[in-house]
Amino acid sequence: MDRANEDRIRDSFNRQALLKTLGASLGAVREGHAEIVAPILDLAKQQQGFGHAGLAFSIGDSAAGYAALTLLELDKEVVTSEIKINLLAPAMGERLIARGRVIRPGRRLLVVASDVYAERDGQEIHIAMLTGTMVPVPV
Amino acid sequence: MDRANEDRIRDSFNRQALLKTLGASLGAVREGHAEIVAPILDLAKQQQGFGHAGLAFSIGDSAAGYAALTLLELDKEVVTSEIKINLLAPAMGERLIARGRVIRPGRRLLVVASDVYAERDGQEIHIAMLTGTMVPVPV
Amino acid sequence: MDRANEDRIRDSFNRQALLKTLGASLGAVREGHAEIVAPILDLAKQQQGFGHAGLAFSIGDSAAGYAALTLLELDKEVVTSEIKINLLAPAMGERLIARGRVIRPGRRLLVVASDVYAERDGQEIHIAMLTGTMVPVPV
Amino acid sequence: MDRANEDRIRDSFNRQALLKTLGASLGAVREGHAEIVAPILDLAKQQQGFGHAGLAFSIGDSAAGYAALTLLELDKEVVTSEIKINLLAPAMGERLIARGRVIRPGRRLLVVASDVYAERDGQEIHIAMLTGTMVPVPV
Repeated sequence: MDRANEDRIRDSFNRQALLKTLGASLGAVREGHAEIVAPILDLAKQQQGFGHAGLAFSIGDSAAGYAALTLLELDKEVVTSEIKINLLAPAMGERLIARGRVIRPGRRLLVVASDVYAERDGQEIHIAMLTGTMVPVPV
Repeated sequence: MDRANEDRIRDSFNRQALLKTLGASLGAVREGHAEIVAPILDLAKQQQGFGHAGLAFSIGDSAAGYAALTLLELDKEVVTSEIKINLLAPAMGERLIARGRVIRPGRRLLVVASDVYAERDGQEIHIAMLTGTMVPVPV
Repeated sequence: MDRANEDRIRDSFNRQALLKTLGASLGAVREGHAEIVAPILDLAKQQQGFGHAGLAFSIGDSAAGYAALTLLELDKEVVTSEIKINLLAPAMGERLIARGRVIRPGRRLLVVASDVYAERDGQEIHIAMLTGTMVPVPV
Repeated sequence: MDRANEDRIRDSFNRQALLKTLGASLGAVREGHAEIVAPILDLAKQQQGFGHAGLAFSIGDSAAGYAALTLLELDKEVVTSEIKINLLAPAMGERLIARGRVIRPGRRLLVVASDVYAERDGQEIHIAMLTGTMVPVPV
């Protein structure tokens, strides 16, 4: 993946206010793959004190979207068309890591998947699995 | 729906930090139905200036969860097992309204749906459709 | 919906070998809506003697696809991009009825939904709910 | 996986009339994994001459269900609670292979995934990805 592509992905990420609100940062990015890391801030918890499903969803969805964007020309953005999340375990631990990947690229739509892990005592617990569809749109 | 039930739902809602962060409030609640309203705060936007998919997801998921909770005994909570969102239009307008409902109640799991609308110039635009599964757990 | 449109939908239906195998027939079709009816043949059962999830899926998916096709020009077909089924009750009874509808039309993709009912002693039991995405393709 | 477990899985498979109708057979089965193979019979095609989405769904869903069953006691069956399929490529080729696996086991529900491949000229093409939830029930 060339530098211009990574730059526009980091620029796009920096304009995502919700991800900033959640304290998320963009991790490793390479062709067809993108990683987003986020702490479990108090402001993102649900009523039992775990991270809200909306937190895992937001970083999982965005990691999948940026994975798709790595494969698109510089004059394209992506929007999520649909995405499903299966929640596997409570979002508790030091931080969450979402790893998105492209399952099938395409000109009109890209099928993507994302897995979210909670780091707990040095271990990664698989807490959510997402599959979805991204649609390229002009910037 | 009796008063004790509505009280515990409002109590639970008030403990959801993420929903507070997003500026959401609980609207009408009745048996099998719950409504959540949220502005589109700058802090919840995506890179194009619309509400992030995570915003529509968070209030849609929570509205579906509270719809389920209206049908459960007072010593139960619900957690989302899985939920899928189809995004229909950009989240732009004065505010978003999520309306959750129970499609099929059950002792072990409840199938739910939720629709999210954007209020724009006095009209409601359907921006997202969710279907999911909620699991009752002890408080 | 004009006659030419309904004709091509019935022609398309008649070329669907799997639906013929399942004994399905096309019911009412109107703009944005299509109905498919099927008996629960022995050949379509699962190990407990109920209709297989694949039966409810096949007619639910096809009803949604034809609902989409009612809105497209005559030189288009649709293919399913993704579809999720929530199973609500066992497929038992005299016959199944799938009712598909378009939730949001679009040039590049159409968001659809479908509900499947089992007719049992003159009553309709809601046995499955589907939501999906259809993509128009040239014939 | 012990012999009694594999036997009951093969017994269950043999009682699935729809899978027999589709010409499917049970392939390798091991703890948390199950494989189903099916030709693309004329009777299972859609209007364009490819395998119907209902064929990929039926074997993908069943492979995921049997993957779940490998982890359950002998007095249990599983039923599909929900499952989503993303279709990646047309079902064309010599035969389809569905590989199901358990993502997260559980007493009340199991999260599963399944991938379906078409064998074409000695190559496997990934044609469908499924994720779902299985619920154990008494036999």
